[in-house]
Amino acid sequence: MKELYFDDLKAGEKFQSDTFEVPAKEIIEFAEKFDPQKFHLHAKSAERSIFKGLVASGWHTAAITMRLFVKTLNFAEGAIGLGVDELRWPNAVRPGDVLRVETEILDARLCRSRPNMGVIRLRNVTLNQKDEIVQTMSANALVPRRSGSVE
Amino acid sequence: MKELYFDDLKAGEKFQSDTFEVPAKEIIEFAEKFDPQKFHLHAKSAERSIFKGLVASGWHTAAITMRLFVKTLNFAEGAIGLGVDELRWPNAVRPGDVLRVETEILDARLCRSRPNMGVIRLRNVTLNQKDEIVQTMSANALVPRRSGSVE
Repeated sequence: MKELYFDDLKAGEKFQSDTFEVPAKEIIEFAEKFDPQKFHLHAKSAERSIFKGLVASGWHTAAITMRLFVKTLNFAEGAIGLGVDELRWPNAVRPGDVLRVETEILDARLCRSRPNMGVIRLRNVTLNQKDEIVQTMSANALVPRRSGSVE
Repeated sequence: MKELYFDDLKAGEKFQSDTFEVPAKEIIEFAEKFDPQKFHLHAKSAERSIFKGLVASGWHTAAITMRLFVKTLNFAEGAIGLGVDELRWPNAVRPGDVLRVETEILDARLCRSRPNMGVIRLRNVTLNQKDEIVQTMSANALVPRRSGSVE
């Protein structure tokens, strides 16, 4: 699989990730560690919550999105997150949902302070098997240039 | 420990979390599952990265922040994240770092569409044992009112 550097990315480019099915077990495991609220922990008490059933923590959805994104873009030297904005969860993720991520590169510019790096701005939209949006976000990331790249 | 409802929160209130020490093992486990980049996975190759050593995924820092926040506020009926903005990671989290979260309630208002709920706006700042900021974020969350609360 091709490894990407900053030099390979252009504003307007779009990427489609693989899919990932979210097991109930992983929803509960993540919640026990990081977000121990009843609607993420127990199917029974989740039924009496606003969600009417077990749902994944938004931070779990964000983490799954990162996994799918990282595997799709496959940066040779990694991508270093500078910040995230407009992180929203318009629909909950439920056990058995099959997620995928659509990435659009919004901007790609050279880094002034580090000539061997570029900064990309991107938007990630995470969808389920019914094409419902479960997460949106925009992010800036620092991505290494191909060694020897000269502008 | 007191369980909080929307009615207990006021703009300007501040909360201090407990602390959590981040083991190298958990940094690597999280990265293997959700953010498999070399500076989160392998101490040796992380030394040759921009970080000069193993660092936690920003999403791991966000998840640890959620754990500390949820345990501190201890919402009786949970808090439902509506969205997050200005999520930034000004310093990396390294193995053995001891994190804590400072929460400030920025705004608390009743929910128009759901009279039994309120919406809080908050800012979470996550610090390490050297008082360096490792994460900042602002968020909106839906929080249930105490049953029978009437305005």
